[in-house]
Order: sequence, then C-alpha cells, then structure tokens
Amino acid sequence: MTDAAIEARLERAREALAASGADALVCFPSTNMYYLSGFEDEPMERHLLLFVTSDADLFVAPEMYDHQIRDASPIDDVRTWGDDEDPTHLLEAVGGELDLDGGRILADDRMWAMFTHDLRATFPDATFGLASEVLEDLRLRKDEAELEALSEAARISDDVSEAIRRLGSEAIGMTETELAAEIDDRLAAAGGEGVSFETVVGSGPNGARPHHRHGDREIGAGDPVVLDFGTRIGGYPGDQTRTVVFDGEPSAEFEAVHETVLEAHNVAVDAVEPGVEAREIDRAAREVIEERGYGEQFVHRTGHGVGLDVHEPPYITSENDRELEPGMVFSVEPGVYLEGEFGVRIEDLVVVTEDGYERLNDSPRTWTPLE
Amino acid sequence: MTDAAIEARLERAREALAASGADALVCFPSTNMYYLSGFEDEPMERHLLLFVTSDADLFVAPEMYDHQIRDASPIDDVRTWGDDEDPTHLLEAVGGELDLDGGRILADDRMWAMFTHDLRATFPDATFGLASEVLEDLRLRKDEAELEALSEAARISDDVSEAIRRLGSEAIGMTETELAAEIDDRLAAAGGEGVSFETVVGSGPNGARPHHRHGDREIGAGDPVVLDFGTRIGGYPGDQTRTVVFDGEPSAEFEAVHETVLEAHNVAVDAVEPGVEAREIDRAAREVIEERGYGEQFVHRTGHGVGLDVHEPPYITSENDRELEPGMVFSVEPGVYLEGEFGVRIEDLVVVTEDGYERLNDSPRTWTPLE
Repeated sequence: MTDAAIEARLERAREALAASGADALVCFPSTNMYYLSGFEDEPMERHLLLFVTSDADLFVAPEMYDHQIRDASPIDDVRTWGDDEDPTHLLEAVGGELDLDGGRILADDRMWAMFTHDLRATFPDATFGLASEVLEDLRLRKDEAELEALSEAARISDDVSEAIRRLGSEAIGMTETELAAEIDDRLAAAGGEGVSFETVVGSGPNGARPHHRHGDREIGAGDPVVLDFGTRIGGYPGDQTRTVVFDGEPSAEFEAVHETVLEAHNVAVDAVEPGVEAREIDRAAREVIEERGYGEQFVHRTGHGVGLDVHEPPYITSENDRELEPGMVFSVEPGVYLEGEFGVRIEDLVVVTEDGYERLNDSPRTWTPLE
Repeated sequence: MTDAAIEARLERAREALAASGADALVCFPSTNMYYLSGFEDEPMERHLLLFVTSDADLFVAPEMYDHQIRDASPIDDVRTWGDDEDPTHLLEAVGGELDLDGGRILADDRMWAMFTHDLRATFPDATFGLASEVLEDLRLRKDEAELEALSEAARISDDVSEAIRRLGSEAIGMTETELAAEIDDRLAAAGGEGVSFETVVGSGPNGARPHHRHGDREIGAGDPVVLDFGTRIGGYPGDQTRTVVFDGEPSAEFEAVHETVLEAHNVAVDAVEPGVEAREIDRAAREVIEERGYGEQFVHRTGHGVGLDVHEPPYITSENDRELEPGMVFSVEPGVYLEGEFGVRIEDLVVVTEDGYERLNDSPRTWTPLE
C-alpha cells in the first residue's frame, strides 16, 4: 500500500468519525490497523494501539516496535513504552493530550477485552462504541488496488485447485492432512503469502462438518472431498471451495446433492447486482436447496464479505437487508451436509460491478476428476 | 486432554470463581476455552461462547458447530443459534436462566470488543472483569500432562534447530523466507502440529529488529542469523532461539555480544528457583548486559510464560514481583540489538522444579556451525 493510499484512507476515516459524532478511533493490531496505517502484526499481549482523532493520528507501542512501525507506516508519531514501564501511564498522557476522557471512543471490533478493560479504567468518563461504526462502510467498497490483489489471490487459488484435482487417483490413500500440506506448498510456490485460513480437506463424513479442517482420514475411491482454501496477495485473501471425487464412483445421492448445490450457487451468483439486498442472494440459494428437500441440511449463511479479513461485511444471510453496491466483494457458498455421509459446498468470490457482477474464480465447478 | 482432566479443571475454576465473588466466566474461542472445555477454534465473528457459573457450564454456539463441540468436549449443554437468527436473543435467554444481569461477569481476556460490547448491551446491570482474575493462577502451574507436551515440543524444536544449523554453507544464498519454509517443513515432518508462531529468521541487520519475521534478504557468509521458532504438541508450544553463523567469519563485535548474551542467559537461568521473584530473573540477565555496556540495546523483557499461549504469565520483567512456583514454565531470552548491524538472542524454556529448575531445551547455545 502506498503512503498516499493510507493518507487518503485516514482522511476518509476522519470525515466519517466527525459525521458519527465520536471523538477517537482506537485500533488494535488487526486489519483495521493495517487498513489505516500500513502496519500489521498479530494481536499481542502488549499495548500496541493506533489512535485516530479529528486532528491527530499516533501509535502507542512497545519500544521494540518503533522502527518496524516507522518503516511500514506514514504515521510518524510513535509513542513508545518500555517493558520496564506500565503502559497505562502512557495511555493516560495520550488521553489527556487528545482530550479523550469524557468523549466517545470507538474501539477496534477485535480489540481484546484486556485492552478495552484498560481503556475503560483509564478513561472512566468516556463512552465506548465500536470502530466498525465508522470503518465498516469505508472498507466495504474495494478500490482498484484491492480488487487487483483479490483477483490475483483468486487466480492462484484456482490454479492450485485445478492442479490438485488433476492428482486424480494419486490422491487416493493420502490422508486429509497430507493433501492439505500439498495444497499449502503449492499455494506458496505459486507466490501466495501464507494461507487465508487453515486449509479444509473434508473427505467422506468429515465433509459433513462445515468447519472440519483436515485429519488423519485417508481419502478413499468414490469419496466426496470438500476442498476449501486460499492464499493471500498483498494482504488480500483468496477463498474458494470445490467438492470433488478424485477417483471411483460416488453415490447417486452425492451426485444429486452436488447438482442441487451447484444450481443454488449459480442462481445466487446470477442474482447479484447493485441495489439488491444481501438477503435476496441468500434467499435465491436457499430456495433451490429447499425445493430439493435439503433445506434443513443447509446449516449456514450463503456467504460473507472478503477483504483484509477473510470474513467481513457484507454477510449474505437471510436477515441482512443491506443493499449491494459496486465494489463489494463476497463469497457465494451454499452447502448441504449429510451427517455421517458427506458434504457438498461450492464457493466463488464475486465482485459487485456497476451493472451486475463479476466472478473472481473460474475453475470448473464439477465434481469429476480433471484431465 | 481427557474428559476427567477437563472436569477437574472446571471444578477448580468453579472454586476460584466462588472465591473471587464473581458469578460467571464467559470464554471466547481461545486457549481459555480450550483449557476449560477441550474445544478449540480460532476467534471468529460468530457468537461462540462458553459460560461457566457455580452450577452450570454451557456453550452458546452457531448451529454448525454443534457436533464439533460435542465431539471435543465433555460439556454437553450446547445451545445453538442459526445464521438466520440474532444470537443476542439466545444470550438474553441464557443470561436469564443463569441470572447474569446484575452479577459480575468475567470476560475472556482475549474476547473481541464486538462481543464484550454485546454482553454489556445485553446485561446492562452486570459489572465486568477479566477471566484471568480466576484462570491465571490455574493455568500458571502446569500439570504432568502439560509438562510432557511442552518437553516433547521443545525436543522437536531442538532437533530441527540442530538439523538446520548443520546446513552450514548450504544456507548461504538462501533467503530468510526460504530458510523459514525449510524450518516449518522440518517441524511438521518431525510430528509438530503447526508452528507456535511465525518462524523468525533475522539475518544481519534484520536480526536487530526483535520482531522481524523473515523476508527476501539472502543470508550471506559471516552473517549472524537469529533463528526463533517452535512447533506444538497437544496444543503446547515449543519456543527457542539460537543466533548462529552458517559459514564464514562474523565481526569481532558479534562474538563479544554473543558471549555477553550467552552469559546473561545462563546467569538468569541459574537464578531460577521457587520463591524467587520473576523480576530477579530479569535483573540477573540485565546486570550482565549492562556491565558490558549493552544495557540500552536490551530492549525487551527477559522472558514470558509458555503454556497453551506462547506468551502468557508469568512475564519475566523488571517490575513483576510474582514469586516463582514449581510447575511454572517460562522463556529466558535476553537479547542485544545493534540497529543496522545484527541482533543476538538466546532462548530456552525453563520449568521451575521443587528445588530449582530444569531446562526444556538443550541444543548447543554456540553460534558456530554444527558438524
């Protein structure tokens, strides 16, 4: 991300903050912090916070992060504390300077309770809200650079998905964990920056657990296998799912369920356009699956927004009446799960365009082995 | 973890809760949740919470996690909500049943602000604290099964550290990222369950950034390289650091700094015994480094506790007057960082025993290539 992009985001955040009537954003190491500053790290137990107010942006950080923050971010006001100091003294000083006590503070939605607890104790007269009150709308609409990164991440995921499917009978006898490691290696070799989330290889009955990752089960002939994975480019993740059979004949019921889920997936994707409510996309997928009698086995929402967070707004649920807008990116991933037997999920990422949609994924959505 | 171990932990947690005067623990997917229930997952944007009170323990969870929770945990009271429902209705119902509003609720220290925000909105008459108020002391003292897992994780990290150091001149010309991938592959091949944290390979000046991970820099002859990594066994992480030269001659100053840090490390480890305050361990290391004139370049604490979290109490800082007790496990990792030149850090994990300490790591602490 360029410094200019960051400055532009900070400016938009300040405008949104002013419009909301709140006084400060306080970010914790998270995608919000990365989005607003260019600095990223994993959540940590030390106080590392970014304060953004109408006329200031500054970091409170452990001393040893000083250089890394300055290298990564155009924000050059970095107030550090040493491991031999109590960081709440620095919080108090910064709060006094920014006049936070008595104001309204919006805390990062993913800030750990230990830090919100500290902020509340340090600023007892402040009121608290969540950073998403002002950042959600900003992050929801992706700019060109974000869309390019997401497209590239999707392309790599598709390429690896196809290569893995071409293993065909070679995959029979591999454990799920072995196949997951193979997927991860290929994602890295293709230029991906780490996995978007722990790779899912759900074979046979394990595929019926939507959030099973991978285990010791060996993939057998005729087994349906749910493959759900992605890698990152510039911080932006890929996320696609195919349900495949590597070799042998699956059950007739699997074929029927796969056809149902694929139809639900396609109907839902085709419903995407600006002005449509998110829940209408969910409804479109759900109707197809309910008509075929599998409504009870479609146990999750149809999709989720994808950006710096692999799960972020807009959520494609039966309740979300938010209207789709150009630049939004989300998954469409209906699934049917037959406990003890198998699961089927088919997922692409979709961008809302000015007059409809564009898919970011295009690998075959069939279950049959690829030649 | 056996069901009996979980039941015993729940019982101790209930006793500690009663003693604290608080009414409920609410855990979020975290090591606290795993410790108390056996169920683990990454933090997620859906409501998945574990409530523990004096006479109940129950999960509030997304419908699709129902089976996974029941499989992983002896806690069989799982209240689920569907993606088409507002989970705060279920929170309200559970809160009424457990009589939470008006009580004192201890939230997981790592619970995201979006969930503490919801708890506060749902239970406006409750007061809030942190789960560590009752769980910290329980988790601080490791039982036999925990110590076995930590030992095994340490042994694997040591083995991989030695194998990597034997690369010698083969490592010259590799990028840090390539070497990190090699380390990660070997940790997995040795039976490790994923890395404890992103592997650190800090070569030359990158080693002077204590929290640099790895990058495109090629390792050169004579470069000091900080290698800091570990893998998990049964959820418990290894974490050790060696600073090495793969081939060629480092600077005289590097040799002097390495000797200093190694002495500080050994003196600090030797100071470990029950009844000693954590800060005395920090002081022991710091004194050696200050005497040699590098006090300003030792920019972090001497260590951190290690358990289900790779950073947890007891923190070995200059301020922590907590007395060491048998069963505590922590890192001893003094470091000296010369900006633009190199860094040196040497880290072992140490268990406090009845009459002193035991190191969990024993790979050579030298910097010279291993034969």
